[in-house]
Amino acid sequence: MSRKKRVMLPVAEVDISNIKYTPQHIQAPHLTGFGFMLFTWLMEAPLIGSLITSFLKHKNGVTEMLRNTVIPERPMFRPEFPPQDPETGVVVLDEDRHPIARLEAAMECLPLYDPSRHWNPDRSSNFLYWTIRDYAHAYRSDITTPLIVAERIISAVDEFNGKKPPVPLLISFNADEVRKQAADSTERFRAGNPLSIIDGVFIAIKDDIDCYPHPTKGATTWFHEVRTVKQDAVCVSRLRSCGVILVGKANMHELGLGTTGNNPNYGTARNPYSFERYTGGSSSGPAALVASGICSAAVGTDGGGCSVRIPSSLCGIVGLKTTFARTDMTGSLCDCGTVEVVSPLAATVEDAMLVYAAMAGSSRADRISLNPSPLCCPNLSSSNNLNILQSVRLGKYTEWFNDVSNNDISNKCEDAVNLLSANFGCQIIEITLPELEEMRTAHVVSIGSESLCGLNAYRGERKYSELTLDTRTSLALFRSFSAADYVAAQRLRRRIMYYYMEAFKKVDIIVTPTTGITAPKIPLSSLQYGESNYETSGYLMRFILAGNLLGLPAISVPIGYDKQGLPIGLQLIGRPWSEASILRVAFAVEELYLGHRKRPSQFYDVLQAT
Amino acid sequence: MSRKKRVMLPVAEVDISNIKYTPQHIQAPHLTGFGFMLFTWLMEAPLIGSLITSFLKHKNGVTEMLRNTVIPERPMFRPEFPPQDPETGVVVLDEDRHPIARLEAAMECLPLYDPSRHWNPDRSSNFLYWTIRDYAHAYRSDITTPLIVAERIISAVDEFNGKKPPVPLLISFNADEVRKQAADSTERFRAGNPLSIIDGVFIAIKDDIDCYPHPTKGATTWFHEVRTVKQDAVCVSRLRSCGVILVGKANMHELGLGTTGNNPNYGTARNPYSFERYTGGSSSGPAALVASGICSAAVGTDGGGCSVRIPSSLCGIVGLKTTFARTDMTGSLCDCGTVEVVSPLAATVEDAMLVYAAMAGSSRADRISLNPSPLCCPNLSSSNNLNILQSVRLGKYTEWFNDVSNNDISNKCEDAVNLLSANFGCQIIEITLPELEEMRTAHVVSIGSESLCGLNAYRGERKYSELTLDTRTSLALFRSFSAADYVAAQRLRRRIMYYYMEAFKKVDIIVTPTTGITAPKIPLSSLQYGESNYETSGYLMRFILAGNLLGLPAISVPIGYDKQGLPIGLQLIGRPWSEASILRVAFAVEELYLGHRKRPSQFYDVLQAT
Repeated sequence: MSRKKRVMLPVAEVDISNIKYTPQHIQAPHLTGFGFMLFTWLMEAPLIGSLITSFLKHKNGVTEMLRNTVIPERPMFRPEFPPQDPETGVVVLDEDRHPIARLEAAMECLPLYDPSRHWNPDRSSNFLYWTIRDYAHAYRSDITTPLIVAERIISAVDEFNGKKPPVPLLISFNADEVRKQAADSTERFRAGNPLSIIDGVFIAIKDDIDCYPHPTKGATTWFHEVRTVKQDAVCVSRLRSCGVILVGKANMHELGLGTTGNNPNYGTARNPYSFERYTGGSSSGPAALVASGICSAAVGTDGGGCSVRIPSSLCGIVGLKTTFARTDMTGSLCDCGTVEVVSPLAATVEDAMLVYAAMAGSSRADRISLNPSPLCCPNLSSSNNLNILQSVRLGKYTEWFNDVSNNDISNKCEDAVNLLSANFGCQIIEITLPELEEMRTAHVVSIGSESLCGLNAYRGERKYSELTLDTRTSLALFRSFSAADYVAAQRLRRRIMYYYMEAFKKVDIIVTPTTGITAPKIPLSSLQYGESNYETSGYLMRFILAGNLLGLPAISVPIGYDKQGLPIGLQLIGRPWSEASILRVAFAVEELYLGHRKRPSQFYDVLQAT
Repeated sequence: MSRKKRVMLPVAEVDISNIKYTPQHIQAPHLTGFGFMLFTWLMEAPLIGSLITSFLKHKNGVTEMLRNTVIPERPMFRPEFPPQDPETGVVVLDEDRHPIARLEAAMECLPLYDPSRHWNPDRSSNFLYWTIRDYAHAYRSDITTPLIVAERIISAVDEFNGKKPPVPLLISFNADEVRKQAADSTERFRAGNPLSIIDGVFIAIKDDIDCYPHPTKGATTWFHEVRTVKQDAVCVSRLRSCGVILVGKANMHELGLGTTGNNPNYGTARNPYSFERYTGGSSSGPAALVASGICSAAVGTDGGGCSVRIPSSLCGIVGLKTTFARTDMTGSLCDCGTVEVVSPLAATVEDAMLVYAAMAGSSRADRISLNPSPLCCPNLSSSNNLNILQSVRLGKYTEWFNDVSNNDISNKCEDAVNLLSANFGCQIIEITLPELEEMRTAHVVSIGSESLCGLNAYRGERKYSELTLDTRTSLALFRSFSAADYVAAQRLRRRIMYYYMEAFKKVDIIVTPTTGITAPKIPLSSLQYGESNYETSGYLMRFILAGNLLGLPAISVPIGYDKQGLPIGLQLIGRPWSEASILRVAFAVEELYLGHRKRPSQFYDVLQAT
């Protein structure tokens, strides 16, 4: 007897109006402590291991989807986009020019800086975060100096490192290195020659991106022993050339292979809004550093598992995920994948945009082979801005939108969308996005196989067992994917790209909650050996995968809190290369909510007037 | 202890002048008959099977290369080319125009047709093959009609089918269907309205390309039961729209997964030059049909294993492999791969060019995402042609060139290159191409995984065992490749592309023998259950993989015979999208050898004057 097979219709023949939403559930055990050790040991055992992975893949429909389905589309091995219309109401940032010049162009997009808005006696009442332009003003007005700020940052970092159990925000940190950069910057201001608007601004770099002379460990205990850092990653060197002070290498989920930020190797970063809760990950340190006011911005990586948007949402800050290949990955651990980008996290949309303007720019190879649309920022100072906002069509897939763990999330996000409509005239249009389960499968196979390939070469008996249990079970799963599975996943990628491109014929931006859950609690039992919780991961990753598998730009903007006071993020997913358009709407969302943002319980006012 | 790992230098830092050529040897058993059955059974057994594949991959350095090597390059999942300079001395064939218009443009490239050259009383002495323009002349001069030719073809095909053991040239053939097409064409000529220069020309389609109403079996016994043909493949429909008479579905190596053309399901096609020898494959039927004079041309697929060039070389005809994505694969079984193209086989370069002009043209998706250079033919009728030829630099990697099973091959090929230099002034430049072993590994992982993915969905207990032993052992090997292996292979692809693009800065065309062996004998023991002979496959595929893994255009032109009278082919590998340039040099080679070509022992003069 033949096995029964599923035959997919060619994607163009699928009747989208007839699609039923399937609530998503991942079936896998929740593991910590000794049970987790045992499970890992079994997963890595030759026979029983393949039985377990087979069972789990079967239970979750993965085997069926990859090995028993006729997928008529040909593979799409990385995001490929149809040519895009130019964005309107934008300022183009010439990628061939120096980042300083691009920052100057980006500055033209912003309304004039009004010191009286932030530097008034009343500020403490509505105070939220100091922005990059606040720092710039403070340095230029002799309110403070980078050196003074540096000392406050150093003591804040030390405070975290001294906690028991340790809660390191940075995995690699050298106070003298920070002081030296701060002294150089202070000297530039003294001489009246700051390099750019972000000169003297403190930025942290996630531990999977090279930042010389720090080692790059990817939060492992050993990766720096097999891979030497000789220079900055491209995006870091661009920031450095603008005068940024690089604080160190921020904590993260080991190798980016997780969504909580749990880190048994160095200690798990805590959520500044609730110290017993996760920051989300994998860019845990970057989000915590920004949310707690220590850094103005941070650079993370966003690949789905290794995410910028998840921790930004959970920590109440802004996370911008750029279009695939919009940022140059050279010098990051995941520089060979098809789902990752390096991207900024910041307290405000304005700051995310400024850091983006300085660090973005495709690699030469990608500019040739992917033909990106120009790098742009939205021109907010143009009188046309409100007209453009009014014409924006927001796409909402309500059943998906509402498939969250906690109604507060969907309700608050819906309020945000309605406010956009009421205040700016954006239109809300119902859409349907088929094959979301297929997207999850295609994504895990892609990111898993690409991560594994990057690791394989470095693998040895000794090294392998030194990874965390969470990483080891993930790798055991990834090892079970065959080459043909990988190709099948890429066929699914082409289908799902089609559905999104169809949606983008009707709408300009797709709105979703950023995550299906607010910051989860850190089980005490997870601190020593980590945690595997696919259900939580499923909620965390529910809405973010289109950004990764399809490479679409997306941004998470804070829009309030659940009943427990935990931040909620609204996600805006844009057309390929449309960072300027999603930034424009993100500014509008921020305008609606900025007055309502609450300071986290962990907060360091490092720019306080002296 | 860590395993020892190999760390590759970044490709741009490799000192190519210091590369030593490594003679290539594949270690695997030669199997036929009962031993082959036993081996297949073991390969498919759960545990012993993985031990055998592991052993074979280890022995051949595959595991080392894919799992224990640091490859610094990022993956290149399909051929990606830097932008190319426009070709000179060419006529552009507008892809947006009808194939008939493109054929008319291609005809402008040819010198005027001189009937007296072919249609003279003396012809039998130097007679070789009737060309497409001979057919066109014969039909237009009432020398014969398509209907008369059709009957001769039908009886030749019947003759092959009636042999014992059967030697079918076509797997699906319907005499009435051929007669009907021939009658329509005859009527067009009678009415004075032939559609194009190829109206009434007989062309066979390989059995893995859809040609309605024939089933597409890919030479299996069952594939047509799970996949229905509803229309012509794109390339076939283009030919049909020019008036071509489609003869039927030509024999091939099952699913294209072999290089000999051995076919236990339907019978193995024989080499028209030596009936006890292979045609080469996988496009065995197409090559045999053209070489024996039955068809003017055929359409095959060329993916490395499934090859157009190998059987063309072994059967003494011309095989043109187009640049990746230059032809539209829609409607072929391998329409989802990254190494295959559909391409023409013909008796002469001129005919290969005409069929190419009618059938080529990238799919819309590929035109957007790959940005092909324009589709061109070399303008031979221009006075500039000889000047351009004179400026051609031929690249030769002598150690590789000479790594053949039989010195006749390298000697004759070297003679051909020297003649090109002596007669046309082409320059010969020594080059080095590193990592040829890596290319073989990257290629087998790519084609294997992509084939397996296409098959997986259709696989069932019953169906699987109905494949040939040769296919089954190949699939068992392919199943052992992990998703991370696949990604690693794509990293190798980027390295090797770099080396070739570097070579193409110094030379215009790379010359090699097409195959490292002339037509091998068919073991009697292989007729019933097939044969597995990786050593022979290694020789057959030695020089052709750059065309597939890197997607470069290449052509095989006959340049003589070994001591046993078996044909030898010279391969010209061109820059991306440079079909016109390799065709120009192929015309020059043909001019040197046309008078020396020998009629194969199996020959059907279907156009003989009535």
